[in-house]
Amino acid sequence: MNFEIKNKDAMGRTGIIKTPHGTIKTPALMPVIHPGKQTLDVKKFGAEVVITNAYIMYKNEDLRAKVLDEGVHKLIDFPGPVVTDSGSFQLSEYGDVDVTNKEIIEFQELIGTDIGTSLDIPTPPFVKRDRAEKELEITIKRAKEALEVRGEMLNSVVQGSTFHDLRSSCAQTIGEMGFDCYPIGAVVPLMESYRYSELVDVVMASVKNLPDSKPRHLMGAGHPMVFALAVAMGCDLFDSAAYILYAQDDRLMMPTGTFKLQNLIEMPCSCRVCTSYSPDDLRSMKKDMRMKLLAEHNLIISLAEIRKIKQAINDGNLMELVEQRCRVHPYLLDALRNLKNYTAEIDRYDPSSKKAAFFYSGPESLARAEIKRHLSRIERIPGKKNLLLLPRSRKPYSKHIKDDLGKFYIKHVKGEQVVDTEDLMNDLQVSFVDVPFAVIPMEIDEVYPLAQNESPMITDEDARIFVRQEVEKYINQFDNAIINAKVLDRFNMYTIELEPIPDENENAPKIYSLDEFEFEPFKIKVEDRTRISSIADYQFGAGSGEALFKGNIKIVKSRKTGKIRHVYDGETLIATLRATDSVFVLDREGARRLHSHAKYPKNRVVVNEDAEPFAKEGKSIFAKFVIDCDINIRSNEEVLIVNEKDELIAFGKSILCGHEIMDFKTGQAVKTRKGGI
Amino acid sequence: MNFEIKNKDAMGRTGIIKTPHGTIKTPALMPVIHPGKQTLDVKKFGAEVVITNAYIMYKNEDLRAKVLDEGVHKLIDFPGPVVTDSGSFQLSEYGDVDVTNKEIIEFQELIGTDIGTSLDIPTPPFVKRDRAEKELEITIKRAKEALEVRGEMLNSVVQGSTFHDLRSSCAQTIGEMGFDCYPIGAVVPLMESYRYSELVDVVMASVKNLPDSKPRHLMGAGHPMVFALAVAMGCDLFDSAAYILYAQDDRLMMPTGTFKLQNLIEMPCSCRVCTSYSPDDLRSMKKDMRMKLLAEHNLIISLAEIRKIKQAINDGNLMELVEQRCRVHPYLLDALRNLKNYTAEIDRYDPSSKKAAFFYSGPESLARAEIKRHLSRIERIPGKKNLLLLPRSRKPYSKHIKDDLGKFYIKHVKGEQVVDTEDLMNDLQVSFVDVPFAVIPMEIDEVYPLAQNESPMITDEDARIFVRQEVEKYINQFDNAIINAKVLDRFNMYTIELEPIPDENENAPKIYSLDEFEFEPFKIKVEDRTRISSIADYQFGAGSGEALFKGNIKIVKSRKTGKIRHVYDGETLIATLRATDSVFVLDREGARRLHSHAKYPKNRVVVNEDAEPFAKEGKSIFAKFVIDCDINIRSNEEVLIVNEKDELIAFGKSILCGHEIMDFKTGQAVKTRKGGI
Repeated sequence: MNFEIKNKDAMGRTGIIKTPHGTIKTPALMPVIHPGKQTLDVKKFGAEVVITNAYIMYKNEDLRAKVLDEGVHKLIDFPGPVVTDSGSFQLSEYGDVDVTNKEIIEFQELIGTDIGTSLDIPTPPFVKRDRAEKELEITIKRAKEALEVRGEMLNSVVQGSTFHDLRSSCAQTIGEMGFDCYPIGAVVPLMESYRYSELVDVVMASVKNLPDSKPRHLMGAGHPMVFALAVAMGCDLFDSAAYILYAQDDRLMMPTGTFKLQNLIEMPCSCRVCTSYSPDDLRSMKKDMRMKLLAEHNLIISLAEIRKIKQAINDGNLMELVEQRCRVHPYLLDALRNLKNYTAEIDRYDPSSKKAAFFYSGPESLARAEIKRHLSRIERIPGKKNLLLLPRSRKPYSKHIKDDLGKFYIKHVKGEQVVDTEDLMNDLQVSFVDVPFAVIPMEIDEVYPLAQNESPMITDEDARIFVRQEVEKYINQFDNAIINAKVLDRFNMYTIELEPIPDENENAPKIYSLDEFEFEPFKIKVEDRTRISSIADYQFGAGSGEALFKGNIKIVKSRKTGKIRHVYDGETLIATLRATDSVFVLDREGARRLHSHAKYPKNRVVVNEDAEPFAKEGKSIFAKFVIDCDINIRSNEEVLIVNEKDELIAFGKSILCGHEIMDFKTGQAVKTRKGGI
Repeated sequence: MNFEIKNKDAMGRTGIIKTPHGTIKTPALMPVIHPGKQTLDVKKFGAEVVITNAYIMYKNEDLRAKVLDEGVHKLIDFPGPVVTDSGSFQLSEYGDVDVTNKEIIEFQELIGTDIGTSLDIPTPPFVKRDRAEKELEITIKRAKEALEVRGEMLNSVVQGSTFHDLRSSCAQTIGEMGFDCYPIGAVVPLMESYRYSELVDVVMASVKNLPDSKPRHLMGAGHPMVFALAVAMGCDLFDSAAYILYAQDDRLMMPTGTFKLQNLIEMPCSCRVCTSYSPDDLRSMKKDMRMKLLAEHNLIISLAEIRKIKQAINDGNLMELVEQRCRVHPYLLDALRNLKNYTAEIDRYDPSSKKAAFFYSGPESLARAEIKRHLSRIERIPGKKNLLLLPRSRKPYSKHIKDDLGKFYIKHVKGEQVVDTEDLMNDLQVSFVDVPFAVIPMEIDEVYPLAQNESPMITDEDARIFVRQEVEKYINQFDNAIINAKVLDRFNMYTIELEPIPDENENAPKIYSLDEFEFEPFKIKVEDRTRISSIADYQFGAGSGEALFKGNIKIVKSRKTGKIRHVYDGETLIATLRATDSVFVLDREGARRLHSHAKYPKNRVVVNEDAEPFAKEGKSIFAKFVIDCDINIRSNEEVLIVNEKDELIAFGKSILCGHEIMDFKTGQAVKTRKGGI
């Protein structure tokens, strides 16, 4: 089995799993097929993989004989990949099963399962630690045994109840054993009781310790309400018996919740069933017919949700979808709010640049990785003595500075009062204050996502407090700060220490108009040289701008937009500023300069000897040839490709993040732009 | 034409419009049909009403002859109700039209239009006031003229640009003229530029001055993204040319936004088109075929959204749907946040009791009418001397008080320190503090929506501030307040003035454990008599409990649930506590007692002589027979039915709110429970 990542967003990924029976595009929903009776022909609805239960076949004499004879694919009439569960579910339901781990592994191999499962112990949430530890020990022992029996094409389930350290250590241990896929088990009770916040903790404790290069399966998650959230946490596979179970119970699943047929006055969706029948039509049908139609609805909308998620990962707005979905129930909102404790983990995997704009949907958006990353990256831009803080305007801010910037407060952070505007202007950092990115230095205000984001005009208190705190931290790096009155207003910042001008009442800080400072706001602009240098610092690290853009610098702008396009040293192209997100795409000279400047392993992907000739020809870098890399690389970044001696041999764009590059043995790691340096 | 309300939620309503060509269930989407060429047979998709353009038919010689000959229904092959626009759109696009108001009104009558439109002037947003006033004058003059020409079956469009007072006065003026339907015009530019917050202001300024008894049409609103919000503000009709226009432009509408076909890797929905074709299939089709399929998708999902809205109104969770929809774009979130300025208006129309639980989805939920209403109604419950504030638990709170209530701070609002627990216990109000209802007196904690709501455990700052403010207001009504430490923690309430016990350090308020107070939390309970009295006060007004429940009171509880079911005076049933929402349903004796207690017109609906005999027989009350009522009645409330002499003749449950009861001349106002008093 073989897994490759195609596209990424947050900790989510779209990918491809290759199996002996065909390819699965992930994220994927695996409809549960009862081996004895099939309600719907799920392949007709687009299911690429199914899951069925080996234990049921094993226990039923007829089924057993049949499946041993013709194989599981024929038995359940599904030609694609088939995953089988081992009887753990029965174990958790009835406390005991009539099969050994070894037997069920062997049986799964005999019937031709594409991915089999060992007989793990699904320890429920909130048990005593003692029990969780003991059962986990058995689970891990059986995982080892499974590998001895079959050796490949195997799942191994993460257990550990709601003890995060047990989940983590289990994930770590079985992760190193080299299974093909990692289900996260025993989470159904959490979902059934709407404990989504605890689900987040359990999934994150597991995922962050599992290998990136293997798909993860959130076991028993069949309600489309949780798919987007789970994918954003790094889950790739779901299984759904729910589409039938809910139908049997006359319930319609929606990505926004569940409807009981008895309460419906209108059919709530646009699927074939909901546009062909009325609630009364369905209610007056025979149970069997109705059940089939409701199962069809449930399966159609579940698969549509998976497609929506794939599209969102492709567009780079998966978190926007997650934030929408998590509004449908307050306990899902709790889960979303809990995600703020995992921003650092998500940041590691979240691409540097995305197609879609960042949409602020509420206080929860403040915890997004993009914001954390921005605030840590602005420290890469060299400091100045004085600061002028301006309020939001249309984006990019520097293009829309208005004449009516209004009034300023002056704040002295260090030293004495300053009234000499000449002096202020000499070494001035102009930055904008806005929700949610807090402070945006003017030089980089076109870089993604600083120009590619939207937030409401009416601010919530969390955003106000967050921005105020970030602004206060930022101000403290300067000697003097001039703050526009609108900024002070919008973010309740009158409480920050404002020092009065000497001849004024000490308790009433004076407001100065622009004229008094002889400032003319429309004259506020950034030199092109400063802009390119700051962008390079922000993008590649402190000092990169200076290193990249030395010599006889020539800046070529787009005739149409007036934006910076290319930067040359004399006739030699160093880098090109990409129009969509205003980040630099290196050329050979730029790669050389960055390579000289940045210390190993920064910005680098190191390939082995075998790959070197291919890289030099400009061929893309496959993960299996990478022997080291800058672990802080994120996907969609410009990276240097070097050999073991740290000689620059090519450069390109990362497809995976550092952690993934090191873990994967399949698929592309870097799309090489140019070799032959 | 005839409009009736069936069900209500927020300012939204489901209803029925009866026209000569059939019935329209509202909210309804009217697909726009070009009179010359029909892309889809919209009735096949469930459209009950369509809109077409009279001016286009008028201007085209062939069409004109044909439509005058065979009528508009035949021409566009639609047997149901047909609405026609007048050429105002062309006026706004091209600045001039070649027809007079009178001519186009007459033409619409001749071709058999079910609802015609006068030639109003669609003044765009943000023009000079002068222009808006002048154009509005013409619009109103033409509205009058239209009535003179046709007299009925007419629209009249609310104009006034973005001047709220002009919108309001226009709505008022034409509202009194007696048209059949009221479009709100010239809002397309607001929607096209995502100025949804301004859209809210314009719609609210219009709707709150329009008659409740007539349907309102948000003109040009064809994107399903805004349907739920518009319905919640009282709009009943939408028209969509968008389903075709977007399709022509290779765009797919979703209730969550718009996708460009060129960017799709997966089809994003569950409709027939999205489950039968891939993006590549569609992209490789001929334009014409593709356009039809995309139009089909657009129409299907638009109509599905309308069905979802109807279901939400039926369930009483329309605002939950609105809050979800308004997360899909930050400017829609701005619109939702702007709704907080209209809580009072929404509260007037919002039903007193709903089927669905109240779901908190973010700070915007704090502005919901239910919360405002609760906080004003708790003032109806008689005050006590001492207050004990407990933190949230599972609901209903009083059933789940835990032993570990922890520690309390003591606060003295008036007078000296109190340490005599005996004294505290004597006259003690126990209330719970929670998001979003702030303070919930224990006696009423099962009344809707105090037990029927969910909010996340992790609190946002707006909720914290809101609850703190409400708690502080509440505390000030008591002499002494004991506050649980968890409450203080969760709501950052340590800043409230906490007075120390005498022998303690003045700067460190002492924390008392329960033991120190000799409190035993599990002993905290409410007497049944107090509970029923408080519920009645909360439900019907101050003093109602005492008035209703005097005499030889006997309380009968459910054997199964232990909950209060019936309250008798001796053998006479006064009222029954409804299990689902814990509000009282009166019986005859209860109605009599409430009638004696509450002063005219409180809790009353006054019917004329004609209706009196029917009411006495227990027949429901139609709005046209009502001559007066308590304007503060909300739908789903227990009301007294009286005659002109204020003699009690029956009682029942309101279907409409006070304003609607007075305005409607059609449909039911009160479902009578019992007559013959």
